[in-house]
Amino acid sequence: MIIVLKPNSTPEQIDHIVETIHAMGLKTDVSRGIKRTIIGVIGEEDLLRSAPLRAIPGVEEVVPILKPFKLASREYQPEDSVIDVGCGVKVGGGSLAMIAGPCAVEGREILLEIARHVKAGGANILRGGAFKPRTSPYSFQGLGEEGLKILRDVGDEMEMPVVTEVMDPRQVALVDRYTDIFQIGARNMQNFNLLAEVGQTKRPVLLKRGMSATVIDLLMSAEYIMAEGNKQVMLCERGIKSFDSSTRNLLDLSIVPNAKGLSHLPIIVDPSHATGRPDLIPAMALAAVAAGADGIHIEVHTCPEKALSDGPQALLPDQYRAVVDQMRQVAGLFQKTIPIAHAN
Amino acid sequence: MIIVLKPNSTPEQIDHIVETIHAMGLKTDVSRGIKRTIIGVIGEEDLLRSAPLRAIPGVEEVVPILKPFKLASREYQPEDSVIDVGCGVKVGGGSLAMIAGPCAVEGREILLEIARHVKAGGANILRGGAFKPRTSPYSFQGLGEEGLKILRDVGDEMEMPVVTEVMDPRQVALVDRYTDIFQIGARNMQNFNLLAEVGQTKRPVLLKRGMSATVIDLLMSAEYIMAEGNKQVMLCERGIKSFDSSTRNLLDLSIVPNAKGLSHLPIIVDPSHATGRPDLIPAMALAAVAAGADGIHIEVHTCPEKALSDGPQALLPDQYRAVVDQMRQVAGLFQKTIPIAHAN
Amino acid sequence: MIIVLKPNSTPEQIDHIVETIHAMGLKTDVSRGIKRTIIGVIGEEDLLRSAPLRAIPGVEEVVPILKPFKLASREYQPEDSVIDVGCGVKVGGGSLAMIAGPCAVEGREILLEIARHVKAGGANILRGGAFKPRTSPYSFQGLGEEGLKILRDVGDEMEMPVVTEVMDPRQVALVDRYTDIFQIGARNMQNFNLLAEVGQTKRPVLLKRGMSATVIDLLMSAEYIMAEGNKQVMLCERGIKSFDSSTRNLLDLSIVPNAKGLSHLPIIVDPSHATGRPDLIPAMALAAVAAGADGIHIEVHTCPEKALSDGPQALLPDQYRAVVDQMRQVAGLFQKTIPIAHAN
Amino acid sequence: MIIVLKPNSTPEQIDHIVETIHAMGLKTDVSRGIKRTIIGVIGEEDLLRSAPLRAIPGVEEVVPILKPFKLASREYQPEDSVIDVGCGVKVGGGSLAMIAGPCAVEGREILLEIARHVKAGGANILRGGAFKPRTSPYSFQGLGEEGLKILRDVGDEMEMPVVTEVMDPRQVALVDRYTDIFQIGARNMQNFNLLAEVGQTKRPVLLKRGMSATVIDLLMSAEYIMAEGNKQVMLCERGIKSFDSSTRNLLDLSIVPNAKGLSHLPIIVDPSHATGRPDLIPAMALAAVAAGADGIHIEVHTCPEKALSDGPQALLPDQYRAVVDQMRQVAGLFQKTIPIAHAN
Repeated sequence: MIIVLKPNSTPEQIDHIVETIHAMGLKTDVSRGIKRTIIGVIGEEDLLRSAPLRAIPGVEEVVPILKPFKLASREYQPEDSVIDVGCGVKVGGGSLAMIAGPCAVEGREILLEIARHVKAGGANILRGGAFKPRTSPYSFQGLGEEGLKILRDVGDEMEMPVVTEVMDPRQVALVDRYTDIFQIGARNMQNFNLLAEVGQTKRPVLLKRGMSATVIDLLMSAEYIMAEGNKQVMLCERGIKSFDSSTRNLLDLSIVPNAKGLSHLPIIVDPSHATGRPDLIPAMALAAVAAGADGIHIEVHTCPEKALSDGPQALLPDQYRAVVDQMRQVAGLFQKTIPIAHAN
Repeated sequence: MIIVLKPNSTPEQIDHIVETIHAMGLKTDVSRGIKRTIIGVIGEEDLLRSAPLRAIPGVEEVVPILKPFKLASREYQPEDSVIDVGCGVKVGGGSLAMIAGPCAVEGREILLEIARHVKAGGANILRGGAFKPRTSPYSFQGLGEEGLKILRDVGDEMEMPVVTEVMDPRQVALVDRYTDIFQIGARNMQNFNLLAEVGQTKRPVLLKRGMSATVIDLLMSAEYIMAEGNKQVMLCERGIKSFDSSTRNLLDLSIVPNAKGLSHLPIIVDPSHATGRPDLIPAMALAAVAAGADGIHIEVHTCPEKALSDGPQALLPDQYRAVVDQMRQVAGLFQKTIPIAHAN
Repeated sequence: MIIVLKPNSTPEQIDHIVETIHAMGLKTDVSRGIKRTIIGVIGEEDLLRSAPLRAIPGVEEVVPILKPFKLASREYQPEDSVIDVGCGVKVGGGSLAMIAGPCAVEGREILLEIARHVKAGGANILRGGAFKPRTSPYSFQGLGEEGLKILRDVGDEMEMPVVTEVMDPRQVALVDRYTDIFQIGARNMQNFNLLAEVGQTKRPVLLKRGMSATVIDLLMSAEYIMAEGNKQVMLCERGIKSFDSSTRNLLDLSIVPNAKGLSHLPIIVDPSHATGRPDLIPAMALAAVAAGADGIHIEVHTCPEKALSDGPQALLPDQYRAVVDQMRQVAGLFQKTIPIAHAN
Repeated sequence: MIIVLKPNSTPEQIDHIVETIHAMGLKTDVSRGIKRTIIGVIGEEDLLRSAPLRAIPGVEEVVPILKPFKLASREYQPEDSVIDVGCGVKVGGGSLAMIAGPCAVEGREILLEIARHVKAGGANILRGGAFKPRTSPYSFQGLGEEGLKILRDVGDEMEMPVVTEVMDPRQVALVDRYTDIFQIGARNMQNFNLLAEVGQTKRPVLLKRGMSATVIDLLMSAEYIMAEGNKQVMLCERGIKSFDSSTRNLLDLSIVPNAKGLSHLPIIVDPSHATGRPDLIPAMALAAVAAGADGIHIEVHTCPEKALSDGPQALLPDQYRAVVDQMRQVAGLFQKTIPIAHAN
């Protein structure tokens, strides 16, 4: 940690700061420049995290050097994490997750129909929401446990692992009985109690990036889960807020190599929620694979027009199959493969 | 609702859309322009909310006309809401909340000392966090129930209503036993299950704006609480994300008149979290009062240097007293007053 | 300047960096921490500005300490700049500019009518565009020199200094013949050749903040003008880009105390372009004065419905007079005054 | 265009609006809903563009339907534009521009060395700045005409077309004598006089997206150039402003399919300025090709450490060659090719 002092800081202020740091059991290195004095702090930097050094008179700026996350960091684990989500599907290390399905579980028959289509198209993980975080209290909120049962049932029949969102720490035990992967939605990325709760399970977690979260924020949220003992975290980029309303959100693909440089965790890209526009989804899915993503999350519906939630952003099954075929080719250029889900 | 068709939409497509809308029990008004055809939808627009009209072939754009919130809207209730938070303090309708206190409850003595200072300085609501949403799992997370007891105790002794954050639906009953006002933090603004839970209590709620929430998003979250029966919601602007890192967040004061035009709910401004800089807080607090805010939320600490959380953004008691004196003068220009808290 | 090295940087890399810096005539101070080594650079930091130190192997981050602007800085000139714009009107140091007028000069009669109204309402500087930066090449682009003549003429008749936009370095000499103050629009804030050109005149410059400029970017653009010899720069906040489309731009009032801390230059606030909504302008104008702004820029039109450009965001004369009356009261609380323009 | 009226608009207001529109020679279609009345406007919508309809009492919102650009639109020209930039290099229609070179022209020898490397690596257009838009007036501003001569000379020797930035309308004639392609930088995207000036030449223009420009803003700026007669515009995405400071800007790849849907113009992607980080450039370049970009712009330097401007974001020649090899493979999957530049 580096402490930059104000130009007119007094020797007494400098002494006070140095003493404060020494009192924490750390060493200092004071460097007097022509215009500024800076103090390097040597020792376990974490001791300083909660100390409000910027509040000390004479201090202009405090520059942290070490990353605030540990377990999620590439320095802690240099090799890529590979996460086994069941049915022979691994995510990371050259093996791509193809997550597909409707926004919400609407019924057994329609889900089974969609699941057949997406598995035939190349999907290896089935998604579907039973608890839906809707902006309006008057919108369809999901089928709840009934939806979970349908999802589990269809996943078993189609021999696919399933992923579904959990929104409330009180739902974790319930959802845990039905799902293979927990999804934490963007709006809950900093719902720290929910993160801690899924961190105490043994299930893989798909952690979606908040709409205004930095890459560091996202990795800190992963750290929350991992600090509880659950290391199976998959990051997910799904678009951030922007000034251009021509897309629903702004897909930030640079987070793929950015996160992979900082962390060993796999990262999935969701172009459906990011763009909200079926005409842009295929190009963005291909770009994500080329950027090095470990998986692609796409909403698919057999009849978007009738979907109860987020229909307009879904691809039709034929469109999905076509883009997976292209993604497979791009992945092949980088020696990556799309595993096929099968009975456990 | 208005449906704009693509330039090359066919008569069959137009018929299909019209039939779809009629099947919902609504009327249409088709207007054929030289370059575009548009369809006006007449009837209970809410029926259409969950219908994915944009997914129908031929549709270019769907323009909603009615606001998606009701109970929170100025149209539903033209006069300002005035919320009684106890100890004779009313918020709204010309009566300003002066919320002050430390970021976190750190101990009884220090809280009492700070409370004495802020009450003497003009504060009429005492704040202090017992459950802290910290970005890092390794940071101080608050004293929990012990902190709640201290806060209640100090509030009673100082004859001030108290406000504290609730982060988890499972904590609502516990926090309800100690606090006068629930605070929903920015990171939980779209934690819909938490909103619903406080909506089932009878306590006023201070709802902080999410870091990338629009004014409509904020009002929709208020609607979640109100739809459960609790109408006592106070909005709170505390800064949004921006590209300029010279302040912690970006204070958006235009939301004050913007929200007051759309809604009858009072709106508080928090310049402490918005700027993260004590040198900017007084100017922004004064500006907020001039903009028409119904209250100001400022962190105050007797020794920011030692604060366990967010110390650097706190004002010292003397600074607080000075800015409240100025706020009182600005408020006076607009015939507004700052009530004094006293025993119930 | 502080150079933070990567965790695994080698002694050879450290030596190489130190030699590179010494070769520039600067001193170093190497501080070896447990996890990181940092190098403090001592001497004329400016020598290092153009050196791409981050490209040297082993370097993780380079942290500049000194501000990149000089002439605009509060350290260079501690007391507020006060700028005399003519007709007895001073801007800064407790004297507020009240800039008002139509978006564009549309004709002599209508401008004279508006000028009479705004002067009666309290305005002391008349604005009007003769060259208009319109997003569409098919929109009205201003009356050009004819507009400048009208503006000068009406300014003289009403005994008010005038301000008008200059968009092109080739227009500077022309505009200089007619105006009292150059306006540099937001889209041209980093049109460096234009900045240099007005920097070579002796006229005050109203420099509008770019739509995604930081406070440092804005001050660097002021520095461009000042470096050419013209120190009479007035900054102007007019809203930045944001994700919430309910206002045209997002008014950032925190830049007022922020810029005043960093710089001695006066800062004006333009709530008309920032919000684009007459219903929000009065509240934001009052807030700006309370935040410490040195002037307020408001578009006024006698008949917004017929204005050729940006009509909807203009106030009517009566609305303008009412808000100036309130601004005068708020300014009075801070011992500030609104000078009255009169013949030179 | 659709005009949405306020809920309480009076019959007189509605009549007034209808008359106003009829006075413009347009027809109306009034549709009275239960809660709102809407007016569809039929006829040449452009007549309405400059009319401030929102200012008319009773109007709540005005929704334009037609796109504000024409010549740049896909509707105006359905097939992709293919732009011949010389030396056998075409851009668009399956032919990819590979633009490479140093940020600034620093001298003949170093430019020739870099040009040899990039041409060998697969580049087909040489870039280099002679006029540099630097944020600080104290930074290196480019070699001016001397730099243009060197660039032309090296381009001729290497048989490559060249591109260089023009910052000032007064420089257009000069730069036109030396370059094959004008570059308009991000800061000048809305320098409308400069756009008009290059629009009067016959040279292709590389138009960089402004840091907070929407896709519509970018296309409107292209329209400015095209409206003057020059149809040879290449769009360029180079990153926009964002809240995450871990990259220099935020690369928005969704603009590639988004712009291609709206417009026939080719679009180039510049991952160097977008990320500012050599470790992220290769992944983003590959993603851009997969997203459908018509070319990639990368800064390359033989010794970034010594570059006078923007060195840290440059790739080394070996890194460039490697990523072009990979881009060629990705392009091949989509039946696209990278042409080789040769003597005209």
